[in-house]
Amino acid sequence: MSSDYTLYYWPIPFRGHFIRHILAHVGARWDEADIDAVEDLRATSPADQPYPFMAPPLLHDHRRDVWISQMPAIALHLGRAHDLITDEAQTMRLFCDASDVLFEITCHHGDRMWDEASWRTFTAHRLPRWMQLHEALASRTGVMRDRGFMFGADTPSLADLALTTLWHTMTTHLPALRPMLEAHAPTVAGVTDRIAATPAIAALNTAWETREPRYCAGQIEASLIDMLARYGA
Amino acid sequence: MSSDYTLYYWPIPFRGHFIRHILAHVGARWDEADIDAVEDLRATSPADQPYPFMAPPLLHDHRRDVWISQMPAIALHLGRAHDLITDEAQTMRLFCDASDVLFEITCHHGDRMWDEASWRTFTAHRLPRWMQLHEALASRTGVMRDRGFMFGADTPSLADLALTTLWHTMTTHLPALRPMLEAHAPTVAGVTDRIAATPAIAALNTAWETREPRYCAGQIEASLIDMLARYGA
Repeated sequence: MSSDYTLYYWPIPFRGHFIRHILAHVGARWDEADIDAVEDLRATSPADQPYPFMAPPLLHDHRRDVWISQMPAIALHLGRAHDLITDEAQTMRLFCDASDVLFEITCHHGDRMWDEASWRTFTAHRLPRWMQLHEALASRTGVMRDRGFMFGADTPSLADLALTTLWHTMTTHLPALRPMLEAHAPTVAGVTDRIAATPAIAALNTAWETREPRYCAGQIEASLIDMLARYGA
Repeated sequence: MSSDYTLYYWPIPFRGHFIRHILAHVGARWDEADIDAVEDLRATSPADQPYPFMAPPLLHDHRRDVWISQMPAIALHLGRAHDLITDEAQTMRLFCDASDVLFEITCHHGDRMWDEASWRTFTAHRLPRWMQLHEALASRTGVMRDRGFMFGADTPSLADLALTTLWHTMTTHLPALRPMLEAHAPTVAGVTDRIAATPAIAALNTAWETREPRYCAGQIEASLIDMLARYGA
């Protein structure tokens, strides 16, 4: 059985799970390029790349023969293809937020390592604020802890998947952050738990549960785990 | 005459011009919140914000009573409202690229300052690569230096505006970077010059030509200008 899509990304959750969760949710068949193929393609000169892109994730949609990079843009492509979009611009806003949060929690992809002072500041201010922002957005669009989806949809849309991959994935792979999510974003915790319990997403998450690296890989993952062990959140 | 839109942003080009260029191109009437109003709204707790958002730019669309944050999402909202989109996902990819480039050229919004080594590395590798990537994308969609628009459109679309605000604005306000753009992305230089010469964009750019801060403001603008003066590009 051939694949509908090939995903080029590292074998870690982080940005990749935003794409994998959508693919799993819609029941797509996809394969993932091996790590050497991803790195070779990334390092190819732009004129020689099959599709000019800076960094993974990169998706090849075989049926439409479309290539696309940038996590929010890939999500939009898939959301359109599989009729998963309720409020297009607000959904893109959530993917852009998610991209910012991933950037922040990894100190700009490991540009520096966490230390006690920067970690305490981040977990006292920016990280809970991101959670509060999404809590306010979710509750204003009518989501409740035990029912409802973003922007008034009857079924999960791309927006709910964005929140799930951001917050459920983060707090599953870095469980010391779960109490912060419960405290600052109980509605978000509720809706993302409900999405994560759907069979396709649950099966994907179970398959990744014990894999290493856990979340974003590298020294910055070690730094994050070290901060959580020492100072909590 | 009342405004169609209010833009909340600092009085600098940087991310704001991506929105201003679209507004000018479509002939929208907009006003801009003053800097204190922007800061007050940004600092308000999420539950009390009229629309929960982390950071400017933020747009209020008065006719539709819609608020939206995140530069690529605002662009998508405006592109839809004014029928400016040719290839939706590829256009979002360009706005996400632009966002990454702005992040990189400001060392993550001034998280650190440039020094000779980091500047020489950036201007030898990442910055020209971004230019080459957009050059390859533009030329493969049929753009030529003196004619054509992104994705085969007959008239400028949101994608052409994305490239214009990224590259024309950068090389206008930091002119020492213009030869690099000419060398690595002549087609991009061509199409963005043509867009920048259209009356609405030209009028906007003329009004900003001599304003200070020039580009991204702050110590990081001073650091950029210092690097360009000392080491060029």
